[in-house]
Amino acid sequence: MATTREAEYPQDSVGRVVPQRAVWDVPFVLKSGSRLPGYELVYETYGELNRSKSNAVLVCHALSGNHHAAGYHAGETRPGWWETAIGPGKTIDTNRFFVVSPNNIGGCHGSTGPNAINPETGKAWGAEFPQVTVEDWVASQAALADLLGIERFAAVIGGSLGGMQALYWAIEYPDRIGHAVAIASAPWLSAQNIAFNEIARHAIQTDPDYLDGGFLEAGKIPERGLMLARMLGHVTYLSGFGLGQRFGREIRRGDLSGRGSLEFEVESYLHYQGRNFAGKFDANSYVNITRVLDLFDLRAKHGGELAHAFKDATCHFLILAFSSDWRFSPERSKEIVDALVAANKGVVSAVIETEHGHDAFLLQEPAAYHRLFRAYMDRVALGCG
Amino acid sequence: MATTREAEYPQDSVGRVVPQRAVWDVPFVLKSGSRLPGYELVYETYGELNRSKSNAVLVCHALSGNHHAAGYHAGETRPGWWETAIGPGKTIDTNRFFVVSPNNIGGCHGSTGPNAINPETGKAWGAEFPQVTVEDWVASQAALADLLGIERFAAVIGGSLGGMQALYWAIEYPDRIGHAVAIASAPWLSAQNIAFNEIARHAIQTDPDYLDGGFLEAGKIPERGLMLARMLGHVTYLSGFGLGQRFGREIRRGDLSGRGSLEFEVESYLHYQGRNFAGKFDANSYVNITRVLDLFDLRAKHGGELAHAFKDATCHFLILAFSSDWRFSPERSKEIVDALVAANKGVVSAVIETEHGHDAFLLQEPAAYHRLFRAYMDRVALGCG
Repeated sequence: MATTREAEYPQDSVGRVVPQRAVWDVPFVLKSGSRLPGYELVYETYGELNRSKSNAVLVCHALSGNHHAAGYHAGETRPGWWETAIGPGKTIDTNRFFVVSPNNIGGCHGSTGPNAINPETGKAWGAEFPQVTVEDWVASQAALADLLGIERFAAVIGGSLGGMQALYWAIEYPDRIGHAVAIASAPWLSAQNIAFNEIARHAIQTDPDYLDGGFLEAGKIPERGLMLARMLGHVTYLSGFGLGQRFGREIRRGDLSGRGSLEFEVESYLHYQGRNFAGKFDANSYVNITRVLDLFDLRAKHGGELAHAFKDATCHFLILAFSSDWRFSPERSKEIVDALVAANKGVVSAVIETEHGHDAFLLQEPAAYHRLFRAYMDRVALGCG
Repeated sequence: MATTREAEYPQDSVGRVVPQRAVWDVPFVLKSGSRLPGYELVYETYGELNRSKSNAVLVCHALSGNHHAAGYHAGETRPGWWETAIGPGKTIDTNRFFVVSPNNIGGCHGSTGPNAINPETGKAWGAEFPQVTVEDWVASQAALADLLGIERFAAVIGGSLGGMQALYWAIEYPDRIGHAVAIASAPWLSAQNIAFNEIARHAIQTDPDYLDGGFLEAGKIPERGLMLARMLGHVTYLSGFGLGQRFGREIRRGDLSGRGSLEFEVESYLHYQGRNFAGKFDANSYVNITRVLDLFDLRAKHGGELAHAFKDATCHFLILAFSSDWRFSPERSKEIVDALVAANKGVVSAVIETEHGHDAFLLQEPAAYHRLFRAYMDRVALGCG
């Protein structure tokens, strides 16, 4: 693997980062009632916590994300998943903010999850790892904040499932959050959202190598199922128009005669994405975290009324959506905005014109996205006395 | 299985129907250059061919359809797939029209296809069955017309992939078609269309029971793959709004606590649809026919110009689309209409407002759909002197 020397990191990158680890030796009771005997969170931080500890920002990751949001790990040439947004002088400016980015429990990149060892059995949890929820994540993130001496986040920020965590922070910890930023998110999962998640889960769970979730112990990986899950996910992260612009009907090999084998460029791209993911992501985590999404419904504890869910929130909100996002469409963000307005909360919102679909939240383009987001972060910084 | 007595058939149904069979003992050379030593088409007809043989209408089926478009088979209580449209007094009025409905080659319901016996080997074709195309289907349908003594169809009609066949008839057999009716169709498959097809194929082909297509000989069925393919297909046939209206976040069993097993109603519905389909449809047919879709591009032989493709067409066109269809959206129908207008062809078109997505072409509702379609068929009937 090629390595990147310190001096080669871009000027606007946080550069070399080393993940940190927080360990709790006390039991953690999940929303479901299940009990983790203890738990660990792996996390990264970028920038410096100021003396008044008022400039901390929590970044929450989405389905397949993790703690490595920015900068470079030793020996790696690919930066974190939100390098476009986090760094010195960038939208989430590490010259101003102290950014905390944990891997959520149930994940598979170092925090307690299905591929971690259950101390009570000495074996990997596997499918025995209990179902987690956004509520559990937010509670564990609050515990991490306690550990870091952060009483209040200037902002909690996330895209997609990350945005749901930000909204939940606003509701459950009104005294501990100054601003909630939810990008390309939704107040609950729709039937179509659940349907796509279930197809992905079903692909994994019916892969004979899944072994009812016991694949780790058997030394197997349900690669077929994971690959299908990722291929499907990927199509829903991109817009139909964007896919057409990028791949159209371009052919990688073969022709349209029906003779011999044929692979369209879009197929080749999905195969690559799927294969790559299957080698990296834990199948039990994927099953668990897609269910985190399905279970999410901000209204559930509030009599089915979204505006009522926000009644105790005191923070300000930035709600961004992308015009071509059909996984969590602008209509879904509008539901959030309408409820916030009905609840008399301060909210800034915009729909960004782009062909890049749901995944646009990860991209540098279009300029309007980061211009708007950055302007909002200027406002957040004003509150970091 | 419950049976339906003759007297119990609805008045507006063609009632009891018996499939017929046409056999060709001459080789059929496919577009790919591959050769079928002979072939058979199973088909149904409804209504009576008039003396001048001018009232014949060809109905072309879509991906998972077959020859059984209307009426009831002996011992079955479920009518054909387009019972909503075909029958005495209905939109495609069997008091006026003689309807011909074949199962296409490559299918799995009686016409020559992967689950049929290859006379040269004495074994089922399986994955050795050559790739077919819309061109091949239309050629075989024309041979069926010859056999039935039909020189010219008053109309060729289809939804989705069926509509593509109708458009191809208009282009390739201008003297043999009076009207082409393409509903919820497209002039070629987009990158997103191809992507969804490939995920379905990949699910089937990576099912260990697929055995490189040799499952029939091994006495197996790749049920997992077929089920996934159908679940995915089904989600794309319905609109997000429609799914939400029908299922919302209704729960079949369990609750949102994360405790115990949980099944949303939309999941239960997809499981049922998938399981049902897996027991009925041949996996090699599914792989082959999704490729028929991918290969389809009306522009291919015409320098990439859709309007140019229609230059020799002499028939009239009805192009219908459904507002909430995102598999073959109204924009795709508009591409067809724009090209027809540019080519100076007679075209009637409409976008029907409905929440039922792509599958709307199979439904009775909304009233505007059949009212419009039927009015057009009145015009077709005028030409059946």
